[in-house]
Amino acid sequence: MKKSHLFTPGPTPIPPDALLAMSQPIDYHRSEDTVALIKDVLKKMKHVFQTDNDVLFLTSSGTGAMDGAVANLLCKDDKVIVIRSGKFGERWSEICEAYGVQVIPIDVRWGDSVAPEIVESTLSTHPEAKAVFATLCETSTGALHDIEALADMTKSTQTLLVVDAVSALGADDLQMDNWGVDVVVSCSQKGLMTPPGLAFAALNQRAWKAVNRSNLPKYYLDYRKAHERGIEGSVPFTPAVTLLAALQYALNRICEDGIQETICRHNRMAIATRSAIKAIGLPLFATSPANTLTSIRLPEEFDGKVFVKMMREKHGITYAGGQGNLSGKIVRIAHLGWMNENDVIVAISAFERGIAEMGYDVPLGAGVTAVQEVLKNSMD
Amino acid sequence: MKKSHLFTPGPTPIPPDALLAMSQPIDYHRSEDTVALIKDVLKKMKHVFQTDNDVLFLTSSGTGAMDGAVANLLCKDDKVIVIRSGKFGERWSEICEAYGVQVIPIDVRWGDSVAPEIVESTLSTHPEAKAVFATLCETSTGALHDIEALADMTKSTQTLLVVDAVSALGADDLQMDNWGVDVVVSCSQKGLMTPPGLAFAALNQRAWKAVNRSNLPKYYLDYRKAHERGIEGSVPFTPAVTLLAALQYALNRICEDGIQETICRHNRMAIATRSAIKAIGLPLFATSPANTLTSIRLPEEFDGKVFVKMMREKHGITYAGGQGNLSGKIVRIAHLGWMNENDVIVAISAFERGIAEMGYDVPLGAGVTAVQEVLKNSMD
Repeated sequence: MKKSHLFTPGPTPIPPDALLAMSQPIDYHRSEDTVALIKDVLKKMKHVFQTDNDVLFLTSSGTGAMDGAVANLLCKDDKVIVIRSGKFGERWSEICEAYGVQVIPIDVRWGDSVAPEIVESTLSTHPEAKAVFATLCETSTGALHDIEALADMTKSTQTLLVVDAVSALGADDLQMDNWGVDVVVSCSQKGLMTPPGLAFAALNQRAWKAVNRSNLPKYYLDYRKAHERGIEGSVPFTPAVTLLAALQYALNRICEDGIQETICRHNRMAIATRSAIKAIGLPLFATSPANTLTSIRLPEEFDGKVFVKMMREKHGITYAGGQGNLSGKIVRIAHLGWMNENDVIVAISAFERGIAEMGYDVPLGAGVTAVQEVLKNSMD
Repeated sequence: MKKSHLFTPGPTPIPPDALLAMSQPIDYHRSEDTVALIKDVLKKMKHVFQTDNDVLFLTSSGTGAMDGAVANLLCKDDKVIVIRSGKFGERWSEICEAYGVQVIPIDVRWGDSVAPEIVESTLSTHPEAKAVFATLCETSTGALHDIEALADMTKSTQTLLVVDAVSALGADDLQMDNWGVDVVVSCSQKGLMTPPGLAFAALNQRAWKAVNRSNLPKYYLDYRKAHERGIEGSVPFTPAVTLLAALQYALNRICEDGIQETICRHNRMAIATRSAIKAIGLPLFATSPANTLTSIRLPEEFDGKVFVKMMREKHGITYAGGQGNLSGKIVRIAHLGWMNENDVIVAISAFERGIAEMGYDVPLGAGVTAVQEVLKNSMD
């Protein structure tokens, strides 16, 4: 009678109507029904991206859209500024290097978020930089970045702001148009409550001009083709039609609540989780934590890998461990997508019991009580 | 009480156990269960590819693997020979051009298959060509190519043979190792009876040497990363886990019958379909038709688009129309993937009724009778 709970920052649980949509007989991707499906999905995505720009999609994981951002916006030997505060910031610079784009790195200690002043001074030293590559929520650390502050600087320059919102879209606020962000990329399997396999990008007019200048090679990840076809409800290549069908159901839920209420729900869950971890007596890893997930630094004597494995095998609870240098040192609990207050209670109560089993002296119930208090207050 | 039948050359119908696998609660892609799933799928794919080489996968449509073949095997300004006998042969040359690879085209009339002698003479004129790009079944025309003959030429040269088996894998024979094919690419939504979103490639030792020399930019479509992680049951980027779950069920079916029996089944369905079309009195479009699909040239007075639309809307039967110059002129009926004799009967009987409704003077029952005769004989 094992019942599984998935608290990883992607894939995230899929609502049952979306799950069942995928088990319907599959349809042809050139049918009028699929054309209507694609148009509907891309229209609703604009609400989620908080933009009037068109949203394009690719059949790929989020990294496909990140790769595409570099390949479509830049030219060989262009200089760009990359904020590296974890594995996904580093991914931006790996992609740039793969394409022969010169990276001016801003390295931030993992767990911290970049100070906007450092970006400002780097921008003034390198006004020739074609783009700043940033991350809304650095999933490897749980740190949120102040994208609004970055956009405030870049929008008056010739430098584009390109934001990886892969994990945080729909969980942390990102007002593409209001803030003046040039490019946002994301994917299906996080806040969008859909299995992995679809990636998205939205570009403003400034960014499309850069696309027209770009000379880097691209074919499958060609943004212009995806965009031109997408607005007609079509695709250059066979898309993941079953995932589009699931996404439509998931987007209906988000649009029904509205994107701002969806973000508020994530914020309530995040505050409750952080409050619980503090009550349990463990330190949060990120200095400016995101709504997307909470990273917890484990006690020195803990082997985080053993803990994560034990929780999955014995309790059916899947948290994410640390990546790279953080392997075994932190645990990451996502409160992302199709989740509400009761899921936070499950995540925290299981965490309490689990660390107690590992021998950590935890005041049982302290975390759950803290969650209850936050949730009660936020309901008032 | 509309009941839909999908006869397009991808997506193809999904077996119910595979459909239901996708509606199970989603799992984390770094779990031990997913590692075991990936290992099992990639092992079974070797049987389907008829190779001892490792098979790698990407989360993309088949074109992602085609793009990857160019980006991973070649260098800028390399010369390659591209056989262009339809839309997908042309796609090879579009990808090469996107990467600055020089294309030596062999243009073949759409519907025809390349004469191996022409490839041989092009190879002898251009021994510097790094690769020949070919297509097993040219899906836009239904033409089969003699890959064995091409491999016979290339295997004694320095030129690699790269085969697009996107639509034909599991339907038309392709003995990668026995024939000496260097690279084969394919995808999930055709003979593999799984929704679109996964692409595959297998490379032999010669091809991996070319990968090590290649200087074209790649990141998301990096074959080496996908291969190195794949053999450990892992991935460089979040994979389409629900599609992998479905694929496992689909592969179990293929492996149970065996790849050669699977190909024989497709051959029986193809022969029956062709025989029916002849009995109906319409010409086949491809001179060497594949097992994958049958292309039929419609009567001059027919608007093929109207016919395809009417069949879908009125009868729930989805055939594929023509692409590019063939739009409205041909209809394509796939007998591909999760299909057997009874599906051919449905496809042909509906076709008979449909063209009769369009005013074509068809001897009703002639096609179905021809199918019956072929099937009866093949059962004896």
